[in-house]
Amino acid sequence: MENKISQGNLYDFYGEMLNEHQREVYEDFVLNDLSLGEIAADRGISRQAVHDSVKRSTKQLEEYESKLHLIEKFVNIRDKVQRINILCESDEASEWIKAKQEIETIANDILEEL
Amino acid sequence: MENKISQGNLYDFYGEMLNEHQREVYEDFVLNDLSLGEIAADRGISRQAVHDSVKRSTKQLEEYESKLHLIEKFVNIRDKVQRINILCESDEASEWIKAKQEIETIANDILEEL
Repeated sequence: MENKISQGNLYDFYGEMLNEHQREVYEDFVLNDLSLGEIAADRGISRQAVHDSVKRSTKQLEEYESKLHLIEKFVNIRDKVQRINILCESDEASEWIKAKQEIETIANDILEEL
Repeated sequence: MENKISQGNLYDFYGEMLNEHQREVYEDFVLNDLSLGEIAADRGISRQAVHDSVKRSTKQLEEYESKLHLIEKFVNIRDKVQRINILCESDEASEWIKAKQEIETIANDILEEL
């Protein structure tokens, strides 16, 4: 199974696409860090059923990412925003002309990314 | 049924989520502006089947938007990028300090939006 950081990222972007039962099990395992055994006992289902549910949900969320690329786009846009922040940190007014040209380009690139 | 502009927007953001048959019919109707009758004749299916397919696809895409809000987020981010572009249009170096503060805030807001 995927690691929990990657599963947590998938949840952040696509968690709404899971049905209620899937989401509860997935949250307990990935976000609340309960064990398969704990979740199984809480819900009166088998450990295997919990395992299968998390695995199926992960696969479903990965399929959304392979089609919509929201995590990939987020990472790209985060880089662009960081670059804008660096350009805004300059204290030299004389650098403004160059900086603002690059900022405009980056800002428009962000829109293209979406 | 929804209007074609709205259906086109849904397609731009979520079209990848349709299966191949759904996508072809939806593209012919929404993007290529063929009539239900033309699509039906091309595919050897009934006009009603084409109508139902487009309607079902539209509903499916609307459900994605109601969960993921990608179009809503795009519109909000487009407004923020436009504001950054306006701030970058100033020719006054003396305005740089105020402008860059606002640009940084907006850029970080864009990330929050995603």
